[in-house]
Amino acid sequence: MRERELLAHIYERSKALADAHGVRVGPGDDAAVLEPPRHPIAVTVDQLIEGKHFERGTPVDLIARKAVGRSVSDAAAMVARPWTALATAAVPPHFDEANALFDAMARWARAWGAPIVGGDIASTTGPLTLTVTVLATCETGPGPALRRNAKPGDGVYVTGRLGGSFASGRHLHVVPRVAEAIYLGRTLGDRLGAMIDVSDGLGLDTGRVAEASGVAIAIDAERLPLHFDADWRGALADGEDYELMFTARGAVSRIVPGLGTPISRIGEVTAGSGCGVRTPTGETIDASDLGFEHRSGS
Amino acid sequence: MRERELLAHIYERSKALADAHGVRVGPGDDAAVLEPPRHPIAVTVDQLIEGKHFERGTPVDLIARKAVGRSVSDAAAMVARPWTALATAAVPPHFDEANALFDAMARWARAWGAPIVGGDIASTTGPLTLTVTVLATCETGPGPALRRNAKPGDGVYVTGRLGGSFASGRHLHVVPRVAEAIYLGRTLGDRLGAMIDVSDGLGLDTGRVAEASGVAIAIDAERLPLHFDADWRGALADGEDYELMFTARGAVSRIVPGLGTPISRIGEVTAGSGCGVRTPTGETIDASDLGFEHRSGS
Repeated sequence: MRERELLAHIYERSKALADAHGVRVGPGDDAAVLEPPRHPIAVTVDQLIEGKHFERGTPVDLIARKAVGRSVSDAAAMVARPWTALATAAVPPHFDEANALFDAMARWARAWGAPIVGGDIASTTGPLTLTVTVLATCETGPGPALRRNAKPGDGVYVTGRLGGSFASGRHLHVVPRVAEAIYLGRTLGDRLGAMIDVSDGLGLDTGRVAEASGVAIAIDAERLPLHFDADWRGALADGEDYELMFTARGAVSRIVPGLGTPISRIGEVTAGSGCGVRTPTGETIDASDLGFEHRSGS
Repeated sequence: MRERELLAHIYERSKALADAHGVRVGPGDDAAVLEPPRHPIAVTVDQLIEGKHFERGTPVDLIARKAVGRSVSDAAAMVARPWTALATAAVPPHFDEANALFDAMARWARAWGAPIVGGDIASTTGPLTLTVTVLATCETGPGPALRRNAKPGDGVYVTGRLGGSFASGRHLHVVPRVAEAIYLGRTLGDRLGAMIDVSDGLGLDTGRVAEASGVAIAIDAERLPLHFDADWRGALADGEDYELMFTARGAVSRIVPGLGTPISRIGEVTAGSGCGVRTPTGETIDASDLGFEHRSGS
């Protein structure tokens, strides 16, 4: 495996996008060099591990998609526009598609606006392990939509549909909500409160927003937008949805114009603490009991 | 393992440095947020894998030091000042020091000027696998010292001493040459040519500079600055030295003032191609045959 040559070769196909993004030096030197952007930079890294986040034998295109998509989704949740990315792969002996995998990561990264400008490939005796670092620029709205920004009186919203992602295989078909986040930042401005991407389960992730903001969040189970094969418990607990949960004041569109992504109002922010869910039978349960942490990583 | 809490806890100790570096949002949200710097940004990522880059049972402080030091060294070779870092760990069941390891990574990152602003921890069935992404700012000199910048007539130099790093255990005590690189960038300015950090072996790394620059580089084995336990072959082939090899025009100090790091002139850049080594017996051999790639990763 000639890593530097491979990265340089793959990078060639990202050249036009990289030039447009102010990439002065791409892969092949000790580091990539980027022109300083005018806006604040969001930076995040995530791991993807065989046997944990995907099964052995998963097509490389889907492995790559999930690896890149998870980090892009985190950037989107800051209302940031993907800018550049770096990728690493620790490759076990049984895996002979490292070149195709890096190629696919570069393709997905490019599709979501963040050319891969550097990386590292090494061999491992363990499972295939990927990391993707994404740098993104916060160009829109009054600033990043932090988890601590929810205020009593805000409505609570979620993009798309929830539940059953892992069981159905949808977790491999991540569509990070970049354009949706930028639309929300642009149209809501100061009315946008907190935002988080739903990776560990809506219950747990909403609980994090409530805790970071020092508020209570009430979710109505009957208002959760479900995938056809999911129920409200799955929507709260399954995770890996990579949808955006956010809070906002005032009117919010029920759809993202042009994209068609639904936006559902699922609850309210109030004074207090914790995340309560009103079940279809009228009980209120604690949502943080429903999410998972590290079932398939965080 | 409560990853977010752990990262937030560790980050607290980096707060003063992070504030000084324009870190607007640290760990605990979907991404960190950094104020845009005024200078170009060098960005690099590297992996560190148990059983490959270090042996099982190595003290966590040294694992952390090498993990962070490798990436900082790559940034230094661009004449860039470390700014911020992100770290990931895939942790096997037998390893129960993840918290101490992240703590140590944060400490080394802080010591080298790059507070850790984000990261990810997951469990793995494989060996302990770390990645460190470093962002650094190119503040000094006419721009990053790229591998393609060597010109015929340049002298070839190396900082510190070479050889026997892995056998002696010195590879675990990385001292990335950040201050040295910045000194060279500042004092040499336009006279500084190419620069690379010596990770895969001086022979192989110098060959890369020769190839990227379209020049020949001649190294005199008798001028190589050796560690007490190394010979010239080891200095060329062993790797993991994390010293800087660079080319420059005109006079170059033989020591970095204030730091005491020696700078040795080891050869010349000429027209042609390849990297030749004049051995102590007067033969000339091809240096690229001596370095290694991926013995302990690249």
